[in-house]
Amino acid sequence: MAKKTTKAATTAATAEAPRRRGSKATADATLLRIAQLGQHVRKVAMHTKEGDPSVEIPSRTLSNTRFNAKKRTLEMGDATQTRNLFNVGQARKFMQMMLQAAASKDLIQQDKTLSLRGMYYRSLHTIPGTKEKTFDDQSESDAILEDLEVGLGAMREELHVFAKKRGTMVGNITITDSGDEIDCRRMGSGGYAIPSICEPDVIRFGRCDAKFVLHVEKDTVWSRFNEDKFWQKHNCILTEGSGQPPRGVRRLLQRLNQELGLPIYCLLDCDPWGHYIYSVIKQGSINLAYESQRMAIPDAKFIGIRAEDYRRCELPPEVRIELNDKDTARAKQIAAYPWFERNRAWQKEIDLLLRNGFKMEVESLITKDISYVTETYVPARLKARDWLD
Amino acid sequence: MAKKTTKAATTAATAEAPRRRGSKATADATLLRIAQLGQHVRKVAMHTKEGDPSVEIPSRTLSNTRFNAKKRTLEMGDATQTRNLFNVGQARKFMQMMLQAAASKDLIQQDKTLSLRGMYYRSLHTIPGTKEKTFDDQSESDAILEDLEVGLGAMREELHVFAKKRGTMVGNITITDSGDEIDCRRMGSGGYAIPSICEPDVIRFGRCDAKFVLHVEKDTVWSRFNEDKFWQKHNCILTEGSGQPPRGVRRLLQRLNQELGLPIYCLLDCDPWGHYIYSVIKQGSINLAYESQRMAIPDAKFIGIRAEDYRRCELPPEVRIELNDKDTARAKQIAAYPWFERNRAWQKEIDLLLRNGFKMEVESLITKDISYVTETYVPARLKARDWLD
Repeated sequence: MAKKTTKAATTAATAEAPRRRGSKATADATLLRIAQLGQHVRKVAMHTKEGDPSVEIPSRTLSNTRFNAKKRTLEMGDATQTRNLFNVGQARKFMQMMLQAAASKDLIQQDKTLSLRGMYYRSLHTIPGTKEKTFDDQSESDAILEDLEVGLGAMREELHVFAKKRGTMVGNITITDSGDEIDCRRMGSGGYAIPSICEPDVIRFGRCDAKFVLHVEKDTVWSRFNEDKFWQKHNCILTEGSGQPPRGVRRLLQRLNQELGLPIYCLLDCDPWGHYIYSVIKQGSINLAYESQRMAIPDAKFIGIRAEDYRRCELPPEVRIELNDKDTARAKQIAAYPWFERNRAWQKEIDLLLRNGFKMEVESLITKDISYVTETYVPARLKARDWLD
Repeated sequence: MAKKTTKAATTAATAEAPRRRGSKATADATLLRIAQLGQHVRKVAMHTKEGDPSVEIPSRTLSNTRFNAKKRTLEMGDATQTRNLFNVGQARKFMQMMLQAAASKDLIQQDKTLSLRGMYYRSLHTIPGTKEKTFDDQSESDAILEDLEVGLGAMREELHVFAKKRGTMVGNITITDSGDEIDCRRMGSGGYAIPSICEPDVIRFGRCDAKFVLHVEKDTVWSRFNEDKFWQKHNCILTEGSGQPPRGVRRLLQRLNQELGLPIYCLLDCDPWGHYIYSVIKQGSINLAYESQRMAIPDAKFIGIRAEDYRRCELPPEVRIELNDKDTARAKQIAAYPWFERNRAWQKEIDLLLRNGFKMEVESLITKDISYVTETYVPARLKARDWLD
């Protein structure tokens, strides 16, 4: 029986037209893992002698996360947690996990994708004969999807689930997105909207003349760089993530870095939020260590805004935005992150931010000149190889 | 002297390369208005006999706004307010207005654009010899820019100022953005990112085979429609505005409606927020009546989600999200908007929403099937010409 299930899944995938949401190989591999999970549970359930149906999930806890200073990546430890069907405290989550595994299997077989919110609705129902809803709210569903990711060793994108789409790109590169060739040199003032899923099966890199990527925090700053044709003058790619970049943008940046060898320079605000955005681009979030391998860019550079810029660029006092208590606490927290902790330059940077007592936005450079940031600031930092690592 | 200023401005604009941020004619017209404002103030200031330097600004108050039921647009009345330089309560705003008019003149002459935040920084400084900052925060600057818009009779975009960029487009149309031809039929899974400024000088329409525009609220729903190639099957254009669509998206939709005669169908959540988004697309916000002429689409249709869909589509009870007191109050407020007030269908719709006592998201249709919304729901509404107007 179990074998039949696996075969059926594979056949369904094969019968379809060329896949657009990932290659057949990736789809088959993920389907196999889901099928194996189901088979395991079924087998144990049918032979109660073998005990309580259960699944082992690597622990997504801080204590099971460590920073490998040599590789400069976060790694998950070996600790796992067991989730049992016949356990009052775990039965609900067990059921939810099976539902979402089945929903993901459906998606892959149909070559479709769904948002996190969509997945919540997809598996939402009232259990027959009870008043029990399968999920109380989306946060329950989101957590289960993370369990599935680590449990199956498959990224969310491979489960055909996506987060919000945000962020745009222009520059000296041609890509192919789902079969459509897109020349990022001819994307006008709007740009190419970076999709939620940027796996190699969906996005392929074509001709690339760019020598680096400049990633900026905000779409408004991005527009300034695009308007001034910075990417043309400096032969680069220009991206933005509308604040904290979503997974699609991070994955794309990581691939541009790893596959095309392009350095990634980040232009972010001089405040704990800007530092945190850099930290997530560089290493991912600590409690999602399992995704670091395919999302983190340990090599990414922070080229500004720097705390010393207030003096160095002779900015007027009006640009100073006072740090509040929350900012101060957050700055200290970030300074203690393992990848900043032993990094003297970062310790100095955060220390100066705190001693300054104020934050500064990238836009504060507009007080010098509209195009100061594109014509003077970034070119000077690049020329002097002046950045934080 | 005054004439010289105007000439200098015109010459600077002429001397430049082909403009990318709008045509020379538009730029010249706006520059002329700014110059006239400056000349007027200068003239009065130099000849104190003529009195206190002042500017007249059409009142952006609710009481000066009326709905023209025949034209189905909001109109501003004739009431104006005077802003005097020699008035303690008005001098600050007078000064701010001159600063921002000058900043906008600079932008137009340099063929550059700035965000609202950028404009705030651009004119931010401490007045020499005092501790007075020109602006306390961005909200002061934003309000002055709205004054300038009405005062000069120029849209924000013509002043080269833009709001946030959000929203994407794909579909059966080719456009030219700042000289780059973009085929929206070949934009992959990501799509074309709609720019902040969609004036005719920046975005030109090329070949368009589409018969209508489907505008959806969320990027995640948009991805479902794009993935299912809805725009190909139904020969349309597909847009999203990531919630409340920014001005760029609204202007683009209005132009697609007015210039190409395409109907605009809006697929939004069944809740006061969804209704409000529709209301803004249709008429603009009441206190920004002056922009309605170039932003509002009185003709836009609301094709769902409808309050009756809970029964009609036989949705499971779990999709119901209870209305809270704020929702109820908001729904009643919206029902009283002039364009809904005498519209029987809309009164019925909001009434049923209130009697239901619950909201529903577009995503709730996923409980039927992943592609129910693209394959069944929207096609059925279009076929039956079943929408709210």
